[in-house]
Amino acid sequence: MGGVPQVMALVFDVFGTVVDWRSSIVRELEAWGAAKGVATDWTAFTDDWRGLYQPAMEEVRSGRRPWTILDVLHRESLETLLTKYRVTGLPETEKDHLNKVWHRLSPWPDSVPGLLRLKSRYLIGTLSNGNVGLLAWMAKNAGLPWDVILGAETARAYKPLPEAYLRTAVMLGLGPEQVMLVAAHNDDLAAAAAQGFATAFVARPTEYGPRQTKDFRAERDWDVVTGSFLGLADALGCP
Amino acid sequence: MGGVPQVMALVFDVFGTVVDWRSSIVRELEAWGAAKGVATDWTAFTDDWRGLYQPAMEEVRSGRRPWTILDVLHRESLETLLTKYRVTGLPETEKDHLNKVWHRLSPWPDSVPGLLRLKSRYLIGTLSNGNVGLLAWMAKNAGLPWDVILGAETARAYKPLPEAYLRTAVMLGLGPEQVMLVAAHNDDLAAAAAQGFATAFVARPTEYGPRQTKDFRAERDWDVVTGSFLGLADALGCP
Repeated sequence: MGGVPQVMALVFDVFGTVVDWRSSIVRELEAWGAAKGVATDWTAFTDDWRGLYQPAMEEVRSGRRPWTILDVLHRESLETLLTKYRVTGLPETEKDHLNKVWHRLSPWPDSVPGLLRLKSRYLIGTLSNGNVGLLAWMAKNAGLPWDVILGAETARAYKPLPEAYLRTAVMLGLGPEQVMLVAAHNDDLAAAAAQGFATAFVARPTEYGPRQTKDFRAERDWDVVTGSFLGLADALGCP
Repeated sequence: MGGVPQVMALVFDVFGTVVDWRSSIVRELEAWGAAKGVATDWTAFTDDWRGLYQPAMEEVRSGRRPWTILDVLHRESLETLLTKYRVTGLPETEKDHLNKVWHRLSPWPDSVPGLLRLKSRYLIGTLSNGNVGLLAWMAKNAGLPWDVILGAETARAYKPLPEAYLRTAVMLGLGPEQVMLVAAHNDDLAAAAAQGFATAFVARPTEYGPRQTKDFRAERDWDVVTGSFLGLADALGCP
């Protein structure tokens, strides 16, 4: 540990690594459903919504579809699921509000205190498939103290395409070896490492609740392996 | 005043509006020259450097040159001026260091305390012709508490092209009328207003030192007219 002296910036995967999307969305949809008298299995709805995430991005990654931000992909998936779960007759403004639940996700308890420590020594930013607006309003809502908001939209490429990582380092004026990706997902770290990034794995074993099947532990010898952002701050010597 | 209830985000011109580029650069170049035994008129050098800014960007705006970030334009201008002022034999690393003086500019005294007040009620960000890396490292160095760093590089268009303003609002998920440009330059505000932005003029009458010829006062009835970011916070009701 501490063996990454060339690193100047830490960039973070967001969904699952920084914020607990599943609990946040289930909680808000259940409250919304109770208030509106709409009863359905909101946990299954949430898991389905996340399940449509990779196929929707793959349309863009493959080039079959022109560049499209995640807010739009989320909204299309929402329409599909409202039909599937027979939630009908919602006005557009209500659907917009529901779609922006992704802007209102809650951080894991260690996220904000850990980021504040890491920020004292490093430039900290996002490297997320979320679009800039989604990430900026999420940060404003949750108190995430980013120095810079970067990711798929600024790179015009969804992770794990190499350009998502490389263009983010270039935009910071850094070489890839000067940037560390922090993520709870081994595949994201593998894609970043293939482009020369330093890597930190933060285990989030409850991200998918009882449906979690992987990423319980580091699958490779990442530069840092820890269980929280406080552990990352310890490993990197941030007081 | 206070008559802009629809505004949710404030975006700021940076050079001259947030930071005092001229005094910062003259001070650092004079110290560097003294340490290295290089004597020249560093004030004239600095004014020349800024003088090459608009012509360099115009090559890109006009389409004669493909998209090029400001760090690169600054570096080319620096080469020109090192020759003109007969500062010779510098290694590349030294020129890189000098070029990054634009990453180390000092804020006006009211900038940081004003931004902290404004941030309590609004999303605050840059809308600058500076590139993301320049602005991110400047913020880290100067303690500028941006929520988001946007501008020419993320919009792929230099101000005052309409796309620089419009794509910034779109990236925040807002309509132009929900975004206020804060700037010390009437022409920047006019270009933003033409795209539907709200506007705030902050007078910076010493930006160009004794060479200042314009922007001593508001030339139109902007939504807010003030002399500091504290005055802006007062006008917008930010405690």
